[in-house]
Amino acid sequence: MIVLLFVVTKSTAQTKEQIAFEKFYNESLSNGQSYQMLSYLTGKIGARISGSPQAAAAVEWAKQMMKQLGADTVKLQELMVPHWIRGDKEEGNIISLQSGTKQVPVCALGGSIGTGLMGITAEVVEVQNFDELKKLGKKKIKGKIVFFNRAMDPKKISTFEAYGGAVNQRSSGAVEAAKYGAIGVIVRSMTLSHDDNPHTGAMHYDNDVEKIPAAAISTNGADLLDKYLEEDEKLKFYLKMNCETLPEEKSYNVIGEIRGTELPNEIITVGGHLDSWDLGDGAHDDGTGIVESMEIIRMFKILHIKSKRTIRIVCFMNEENGLRGGSKYFEEAKKDTVNKYVAALESDRGGFTPRGFEMDTDQATVNTIANWKDLFAPYHVNEFFKGGSGADVYQLKKVKCLCMELVPDSQRYFDVHHCANDVLKNVNRRELEMSAATMAAMVYMLANM
Amino acid sequence: MIVLLFVVTKSTAQTKEQIAFEKFYNESLSNGQSYQMLSYLTGKIGARISGSPQAAAAVEWAKQMMKQLGADTVKLQELMVPHWIRGDKEEGNIISLQSGTKQVPVCALGGSIGTGLMGITAEVVEVQNFDELKKLGKKKIKGKIVFFNRAMDPKKISTFEAYGGAVNQRSSGAVEAAKYGAIGVIVRSMTLSHDDNPHTGAMHYDNDVEKIPAAAISTNGADLLDKYLEEDEKLKFYLKMNCETLPEEKSYNVIGEIRGTELPNEIITVGGHLDSWDLGDGAHDDGTGIVESMEIIRMFKILHIKSKRTIRIVCFMNEENGLRGGSKYFEEAKKDTVNKYVAALESDRGGFTPRGFEMDTDQATVNTIANWKDLFAPYHVNEFFKGGSGADVYQLKKVKCLCMELVPDSQRYFDVHHCANDVLKNVNRRELEMSAATMAAMVYMLANM
Repeated sequence: MIVLLFVVTKSTAQTKEQIAFEKFYNESLSNGQSYQMLSYLTGKIGARISGSPQAAAAVEWAKQMMKQLGADTVKLQELMVPHWIRGDKEEGNIISLQSGTKQVPVCALGGSIGTGLMGITAEVVEVQNFDELKKLGKKKIKGKIVFFNRAMDPKKISTFEAYGGAVNQRSSGAVEAAKYGAIGVIVRSMTLSHDDNPHTGAMHYDNDVEKIPAAAISTNGADLLDKYLEEDEKLKFYLKMNCETLPEEKSYNVIGEIRGTELPNEIITVGGHLDSWDLGDGAHDDGTGIVESMEIIRMFKILHIKSKRTIRIVCFMNEENGLRGGSKYFEEAKKDTVNKYVAALESDRGGFTPRGFEMDTDQATVNTIANWKDLFAPYHVNEFFKGGSGADVYQLKKVKCLCMELVPDSQRYFDVHHCANDVLKNVNRRELEMSAATMAAMVYMLANM
Repeated sequence: MIVLLFVVTKSTAQTKEQIAFEKFYNESLSNGQSYQMLSYLTGKIGARISGSPQAAAAVEWAKQMMKQLGADTVKLQELMVPHWIRGDKEEGNIISLQSGTKQVPVCALGGSIGTGLMGITAEVVEVQNFDELKKLGKKKIKGKIVFFNRAMDPKKISTFEAYGGAVNQRSSGAVEAAKYGAIGVIVRSMTLSHDDNPHTGAMHYDNDVEKIPAAAISTNGADLLDKYLEEDEKLKFYLKMNCETLPEEKSYNVIGEIRGTELPNEIITVGGHLDSWDLGDGAHDDGTGIVESMEIIRMFKILHIKSKRTIRIVCFMNEENGLRGGSKYFEEAKKDTVNKYVAALESDRGGFTPRGFEMDTDQATVNTIANWKDLFAPYHVNEFFKGGSGADVYQLKKVKCLCMELVPDSQRYFDVHHCANDVLKNVNRRELEMSAATMAAMVYMLANM
């Protein structure tokens, strides 16, 4: 009898880490508030591009919410952000004498100048990359609109890798094309889906190169333009947008803390970004990262789970078009002589089923963390690998901080990324709750090991 | 120079298995036809419950499609199927003198008798399980409608486990309640989402027990009824449905083969089920399993990939309400003295991101297959475990066949399962393509190892 009891006890005894993990997942999946918070953020506040009234509302909401959830301290970290507005006129027309006129879905890329009231109309040069621009040269490009049509590679299993292989057209296309005298660029949307949504995203200008308007075109629109160009290389494209850049605005990172019980000066930074693009409601990008982070405060408090180190939840401002929030946080961390920045965990790849963590650190540390895989295995979180981290935290590596990011399933992300589809109904409640629990579990380990 | 060349060659050389895997994933993600086929099956044929004209159309479509895709042989395996129809009147009303009358979303469970033209109206007894029925006894149940309201457990990480913990209310609730004189049952929908969709599914009667009507109620409706009952335990429920069971119909499993080049009498069975429930379009359940299986034929042929063993694609009929197709196939396999049934792989858990395989076999075989994990790792398919297999293939275990099932991510499945949400727009193209490639890769291993 005693032996039997011993065996039973041994086989069912859980470590304190296993118990904490189970509490997080049970709480998130049964009583989770992440979806409800996301519903508020996306539905009542909505899109919140830096400098907008909605971004200010999101700051106020995040501050109040972290207080309500029981953060020991909540404070604002002031910074200045770019203030770009889309305007209300966006139009793109293919004008072909042979094939007729066809309107296609376009949107301004974030940061672009407008076209003026009359729009621009010009012949189109289609290219796949910057090398082709160079080969064509000024003679063939001057006065025209350059159409960057290199698709994301569907063969890449990680859609982020496919994104990385195409996104320079969006970020640098205008600068590169302007060097050869182009008067505007249209860029194939950064998505693997075939649909009618133009996807916006950041682009930049160089001071030495003339600024020209830059727009995204939906993938279906891009395919159509490509087809029309085959039939009529002399067709023209009409582009109108009245977006503009206004003076910078004051804004904030919102920072809430759970003070560490034993090592309060050792900081575990965790967060996502509060700003979003102006199309859609910023649900997956990055509302989910924000509410997952909020949920950590709520769960540590309601489950009475202790943290040796200080957990610092940061709602970063301006990830999308400036990274001012991440940079400000890093600058302050550099100057901080009191605290040690032990680890930083970001969630900014959508609120999908969690698959693992990517870490920007030495191999020994990666191995240490990968040793926790048995704890995560019951929750099917099983990929721990060395690589990058997140845009808002990666600079902290310079203060010897372990930088990492949650890796959710990536297959659906670019269907919604930076476009009108990034809304609550495309977030699955349970997938979000699984991610929230996974973030909490990793933070628990970072904060207590 | 030679050494360097050797090193480079060695480090980049792929095994023939790695090459085949890469071909399957590249083809599926770049030129895959699974989504297009699913679009036809769900959009042009639609819901296809056993015995319906649509089920017959699906048989014809599957036959033609497998021929078109290049199957070496295509044949039909005849069988008889139940023919249950929903009818056109389904209504559920909570009638409370205190709280008023409220219509709630209900649907007949598959196989239920109707209520008659006038419907049934009776007081409601809410229970969580069959033990409670027993405790209440005939005195408290006779003449009433039993309301089974045990929710699926959201804490289960596998939603299938949550389903398994609740589904006996749906399958056996009517029989159990009728034993105590109930005149009808309403069952909380088998889903973890909180919405207004009633979810149908199979229920059965016993010959010795009176048949009573059985309906599903949406989870929101169930919560409302529970609340109303707290306020007024004497409230009545009005249920009307004119579903009925018609005479059995002739139908078919559709079987296409790629003949093995070396061991043609060793059969790798792979498939899903062609029938579906009548709500929604049977997209995830099990259109995705069908088109993933079809894609295997297409890809083996177009990629010129050889198979030593015979690959037999089976579109099973009548999985949902009778399992006649799976049983017929098993009966024929038992009688088959020519062929050896080596392995059977089913896909019937939705077309989501693939995570692994569940196998119903001895541990040594599980270990052998788990040894292929490095091949699957680049595609993030990393869970290989002993357990059950699929409803249409599990009986083949009795002829010493290795029975297994694809395990996709399960978090969203029961949001759409057996309800009006099971439509094409809730299938993600890339997730489906990933699953199709994963099925092909596993079949390749089974057919050639």
